[in-house]
Amino acid sequence: MDTEQFESVESILDKLTGEDAQHVRRVLYGPAVNPLQLSSEALNHAEIDNFELKGYGFDIRQEQLRAPRLVRVGVFQNATPLETWAPIEQQRHAFYGMAKRALLTAFCSGVNVFCFQEAWNMPFAFCTREKYPWCEYAEAAEDGPTTVFLQQLAKQYNMVIISPILERDSSHCDTIWNTAVVIDNHGDYLGKHRKNHIPRVGDFNESTYYIEGNTGHPVFETEFGRLAINICYGRHHPMNWLMFGLNGAEIVFNPSATVNGLSEPLWGIEARNAAIANGYFTCAINRVGTEVFQNEFTSGDGNRAHKNFGHFYGSSYVAAPNGSRTPGLSRTKNGLLVAEMDLNLCRQVKDNWGFQMTQRLDMYAEKFGEAIKHDYKPEIIKRK
Amino acid sequence: MDTEQFESVESILDKLTGEDAQHVRRVLYGPAVNPLQLSSEALNHAEIDNFELKGYGFDIRQEQLRAPRLVRVGVFQNATPLETWAPIEQQRHAFYGMAKRALLTAFCSGVNVFCFQEAWNMPFAFCTREKYPWCEYAEAAEDGPTTVFLQQLAKQYNMVIISPILERDSSHCDTIWNTAVVIDNHGDYLGKHRKNHIPRVGDFNESTYYIEGNTGHPVFETEFGRLAINICYGRHHPMNWLMFGLNGAEIVFNPSATVNGLSEPLWGIEARNAAIANGYFTCAINRVGTEVFQNEFTSGDGNRAHKNFGHFYGSSYVAAPNGSRTPGLSRTKNGLLVAEMDLNLCRQVKDNWGFQMTQRLDMYAEKFGEAIKHDYKPEIIKRK
Repeated sequence: MDTEQFESVESILDKLTGEDAQHVRRVLYGPAVNPLQLSSEALNHAEIDNFELKGYGFDIRQEQLRAPRLVRVGVFQNATPLETWAPIEQQRHAFYGMAKRALLTAFCSGVNVFCFQEAWNMPFAFCTREKYPWCEYAEAAEDGPTTVFLQQLAKQYNMVIISPILERDSSHCDTIWNTAVVIDNHGDYLGKHRKNHIPRVGDFNESTYYIEGNTGHPVFETEFGRLAINICYGRHHPMNWLMFGLNGAEIVFNPSATVNGLSEPLWGIEARNAAIANGYFTCAINRVGTEVFQNEFTSGDGNRAHKNFGHFYGSSYVAAPNGSRTPGLSRTKNGLLVAEMDLNLCRQVKDNWGFQMTQRLDMYAEKFGEAIKHDYKPEIIKRK
Repeated sequence: MDTEQFESVESILDKLTGEDAQHVRRVLYGPAVNPLQLSSEALNHAEIDNFELKGYGFDIRQEQLRAPRLVRVGVFQNATPLETWAPIEQQRHAFYGMAKRALLTAFCSGVNVFCFQEAWNMPFAFCTREKYPWCEYAEAAEDGPTTVFLQQLAKQYNMVIISPILERDSSHCDTIWNTAVVIDNHGDYLGKHRKNHIPRVGDFNESTYYIEGNTGHPVFETEFGRLAINICYGRHHPMNWLMFGLNGAEIVFNPSATVNGLSEPLWGIEARNAAIANGYFTCAINRVGTEVFQNEFTSGDGNRAHKNFGHFYGSSYVAAPNGSRTPGLSRTKNGLLVAEMDLNLCRQVKDNWGFQMTQRLDMYAEKFGEAIKHDYKPEIIKRK
């Protein structure tokens, strides 16, 4: 069976009909989302550029005292446009060209906040463990070429742009970080967040290049809501999600790069669980396609050396705090997912479920403080 | 559309065929589980008693130094056998009779550890907010009638039994708790765990009867593995799951009582996310059927007074740390789900994914310690 090339789980579930379809939808995808009417201009752009364009809106009850706070989010998933061994300048040119088209389409779709996938402007080459040319892709967060390129577009389109890149930190001995840059809708650099949790699994020992982030759990207060970024492997860590919630996030983006052999059954679970547990929207974004490298490498799985480590399965989706989620984008194609959400839903869900009120954070702060000690004795009850 | 009476999502997905079925299975249910061959004796018992009996096993790689540690878990979901207003003695008689048959069937299925649903020996009457007769169901954990009843069967069947009940704490002013009692396979009382997180949502303001538990996060070391219990609403709390993991749990049971209008789209997400994040097996157990009460009550949802608050949708399932899960039991029928697992899988998954090694508990202990202060200032970055 070819596990790479089928379109999506949702395209298969669409074959179910009548009450069967409704039951499966309700239980597996939560309260229904409504397809958005997107402009013909946007649809034309997507067709010309051969990427998928889908839009959905989440339902909400109106309040008496707060006006709706409608925000449209756009998340973009893409394959690498050139061969991974093309020169860096050429790669950048190709990535920027693609980004420009995606941002234009997002603008035509009314998007207020746009987020790229992890390390969006380069091949995901960390599997190779080669330092060069990959370290050369690292650039300054605040005024590197990618940030400068996006600032003009953010201003032009009145759009907040989140740009996950490889960062070069020249103020600290030229170290490298995995970083998301936030540019506000005036085109100004707002700040950055560095990936908090770094994988050491399969082809992803990224600590070859960068280590655990030191920027905490910042929430970016923008004209379109309070935003945070949980980069890739951080989605496996419930406390990482929780801390963004404690700092008041309303939308948490999860720009990722992950392959079908490793994580696909987990993909629909983790970001969605985080939305439910923390009372915010989550946007899970994954690459698509297979990236082939020039030199062979091994993957620590006993198999022979090879030049690619599997299929990035796309499937980007948005989840709401009430258990609702959109269908995923394609597993095989570039795509832009537009989701319209009323941020008031976050507080409504918190009021209803009360998870924050009942979370007993004081107890856990104390218990975790105990558990970190090297001589911690787990609380075990056994037969005398 | 009748959202109550369809059998299960899996029975609908079974209508998919060929590669469609395989793709959906792999992505939505993870690495395949294998149906267990159960004894004809067990199947006969289940048929006579008209409950569903299903068994599945999880795959695992063999190790060189550790022998497999195979355990069979049995989880039982049931409707109330009598009308909710039947006298307490009669109710107990009926519950005990049903339990006896379920335990016999579990024994014939090779079960080592058996867990009932939340407050299994009574109607789930907390929606009524009436103190009587419901408080009369509360009994001593260590030597109350239900524990005494189960001790003999635990010994006879060489089975650990987890019995979630309403506890009366006569050592502390006769207070009531929502408690899971653990009886070991020699028939001895091993200990108890009190529900850590208490809901205040819809028909579930259980703090009318009992408050947040004070027994911490004990893990019970038994001949069949290290067990813990996360009772009902605690499944919405990632730190509760995490703490059981830090104390070394290999299987965490989640005895629950929850209805379709409230939580069904969350049901397949939360216990499964916990298994993945914490490197242990989770067993999610829910009631079935609709419980009707003698006196009408309101549900805080603006609707008229009524005598039942919805359909307990069953759907009990077991999830593994590698992202695999069993199909759910029926949404409408009593059922016993048997799952065979090799506990060695827990450490294998931890070694592979490294979530524990990379969790940065020290950072979170410190941050949570800050966040509990009444004057905590969230970490917000905004435009100057």
